[in-house]
Amino acid sequence: MISVEDALAQICGSLTPLGAEQVSLSDAHGRVLAEDLAARRTQPPFAVSAMDGYAVRAVDIAGLPKRLKLVGYIPAGGSHDGVVGIGEAVRIFTGARLPDGADAVVIQEDTEAGDGTVLVKDTVGPFEPGRHVRQAGIDFVEGQIGLKGGRRLTARDVGLAAAMNRPWLLVHRRPRVAILPTGDEVALPGDPIGPNQIVSSNGSALGALVVACGGVPIQLGIARDDSDTLKTMAQGAAGADLLVTIGGASVGEHDLVKKALGEIGLSVDFWKIAMRPGKPLMFGRLGTTAVLGLPGNPVSALVCGMLFLKPAIERLQGLPGSGPALEPARAGADLKANDGRQDYMRARLSRDADGALVALPFTKQDSSMMSALAGADCLVVRPPLAPAVPAGGRLNIIRLSDSHAIL
Amino acid sequence: MISVEDALAQICGSLTPLGAEQVSLSDAHGRVLAEDLAARRTQPPFAVSAMDGYAVRAVDIAGLPKRLKLVGYIPAGGSHDGVVGIGEAVRIFTGARLPDGADAVVIQEDTEAGDGTVLVKDTVGPFEPGRHVRQAGIDFVEGQIGLKGGRRLTARDVGLAAAMNRPWLLVHRRPRVAILPTGDEVALPGDPIGPNQIVSSNGSALGALVVACGGVPIQLGIARDDSDTLKTMAQGAAGADLLVTIGGASVGEHDLVKKALGEIGLSVDFWKIAMRPGKPLMFGRLGTTAVLGLPGNPVSALVCGMLFLKPAIERLQGLPGSGPALEPARAGADLKANDGRQDYMRARLSRDADGALVALPFTKQDSSMMSALAGADCLVVRPPLAPAVPAGGRLNIIRLSDSHAIL
Repeated sequence: MISVEDALAQICGSLTPLGAEQVSLSDAHGRVLAEDLAARRTQPPFAVSAMDGYAVRAVDIAGLPKRLKLVGYIPAGGSHDGVVGIGEAVRIFTGARLPDGADAVVIQEDTEAGDGTVLVKDTVGPFEPGRHVRQAGIDFVEGQIGLKGGRRLTARDVGLAAAMNRPWLLVHRRPRVAILPTGDEVALPGDPIGPNQIVSSNGSALGALVVACGGVPIQLGIARDDSDTLKTMAQGAAGADLLVTIGGASVGEHDLVKKALGEIGLSVDFWKIAMRPGKPLMFGRLGTTAVLGLPGNPVSALVCGMLFLKPAIERLQGLPGSGPALEPARAGADLKANDGRQDYMRARLSRDADGALVALPFTKQDSSMMSALAGADCLVVRPPLAPAVPAGGRLNIIRLSDSHAIL
Repeated sequence: MISVEDALAQICGSLTPLGAEQVSLSDAHGRVLAEDLAARRTQPPFAVSAMDGYAVRAVDIAGLPKRLKLVGYIPAGGSHDGVVGIGEAVRIFTGARLPDGADAVVIQEDTEAGDGTVLVKDTVGPFEPGRHVRQAGIDFVEGQIGLKGGRRLTARDVGLAAAMNRPWLLVHRRPRVAILPTGDEVALPGDPIGPNQIVSSNGSALGALVVACGGVPIQLGIARDDSDTLKTMAQGAAGADLLVTIGGASVGEHDLVKKALGEIGLSVDFWKIAMRPGKPLMFGRLGTTAVLGLPGNPVSALVCGMLFLKPAIERLQGLPGSGPALEPARAGADLKANDGRQDYMRARLSRDADGALVALPFTKQDSSMMSALAGADCLVVRPPLAPAVPAGGRLNIIRLSDSHAIL
């Protein structure tokens, strides 16, 4: 058996980022940038007003109240041809170009408009050159790398790329992930179900996971536990970047996937991982397609999907392909010492009076229970041979979906 | 001025969930369920083996080692016609139906196969009925509500719905969000840029945000600062559930959006919010379309988008429409007392030696600086009139994008 870390390193080490394609800004959210993105503009390209008010010379704003002569008007997008002189002011709006001569802006709340004049009544704090002015280039300058290659683009990044005047972006193409659940005991949702069968959930759940990771799922259907069927259906993965098989990978005589695909050239990199749920796991290569064999129990399949498939899809997209982030939390109950396998316990998350996260593992940790996984807020990660942890003691968790982060 | 909380309550209070549509499981990830989803199956529908091994009567597993007579073979998906008697065993695989008579499974690692027999050498711990057996219904039973309406479906939920044999799901339809940036000072990325213009980033960034929230963006283009243009272009929002205008909403004479849309029937619910960035904010209704007016500065537009647009889109999808989750953190530097506006400071996040989150606000908090927002890990939330906080003191943050949560 090998460790989770070693398995992850081996998977990601054997994968390289896919080629790039150009997408428009409107399709760029969530994609991974395949180039360093330089600004085509300086932002702002000239000094602009940060507020609605009056462009002035700062030296004039002393001994308030003071009346200035109104010599112009600049809406956003407009400009003033003349130079603002001593004792003069120009009406200006947020985002408008600061006129020559002026070096500051008095906000309109501090003024009273007169007939061809403006009365500056008072200002908050000392008034110096540059007040309420955004200088040229305070955000970025032309040629500056605003976004680095290998970054997954957020909504904020898309906005920054737009401001840099980059309407088309080079991003890594989406990994095509073929999904092949196996087993005589499973039927697809809605299909006729035999007397000894259950409904297959792994293909649907892993398809959703692939989408969430930025990949394109290709559902190959369910392969029966039969070598010829497996070999035939695995051909459906031709053209995919990754083939994910599910089930048929335990310790029994039904290690069919490994055997069947071995006959058509599968080279297996490893086979068992010291973790729970999910011990039987396979990684290899069938021609140019990487192959990841996940265990068949639905909880095991999804946890292994998060730990290994997600980083694999990330790596193909040009990201580092790291495991999920660990966060510190406190134990909500006494936990026993762990055995030699890294444990991922389904748990509920809350906060104690101090605001610290508290993780309470469910009593039942059966790897077939989808309802418990769906209802979990996090996984408690227990390293191999971890000592017992009393309630309130420290442990690490992996948060499951967080619907709050959107920017 | 009204508070962020009041504004949010008013927005979400005036919106009701959109109608529902049926989607297949493969399209259901991230959608919000519009019905309580009951299981069409009991899972497992019968007792199954949790391991590869031998189905036995537990009473037989005493005085080990013990030899049992092999009377059958059940692969997953198969069954055994007879009844397992005293002194008998049936070869069984993970997920296969437990045969009548048997009440437990001995794992194959604890056995040695013989000629028509199996030798049970030893078991770990006491061996009782139910060992390595998943009883019928331990995950869920037919008719049980496995997923409640109003829940945004995760990959785990999709798996659970599949296991419940629900291939089609009723979900709220995606909100159509028309986006109308305004201003003479902005040009679309890639378009010709006038001498006093900058590149518009708000439409692109908010479009990405709408997608991230589960909506469908409709880009109406940029409206010039002209009443007729605004009225004409706002017609493009007909059929949308929400019209988002950006800019033209400050305190100056250029409050064009409010005036222009007022002439075609906009009823404005409120106008200014005690927050920074983003003071000028508008919410109302134009016919049946809700209208949200965001400030024009890109950072203000996105922060207000997160605080108000996201909950609005969520509400339309049938979610409660709450603000972003606050998390406790420690101040990375001394923070001054706050004024009367709720402040959202762009900040970097790290962890101290104790594992606690530490938020260090950027020195520059200008609401035009997209690069700073794109580089931020979180927003530090400072309530109105919050007292000074020393470095190490407590504060609340909102995390920005978290690429780790996918399940």
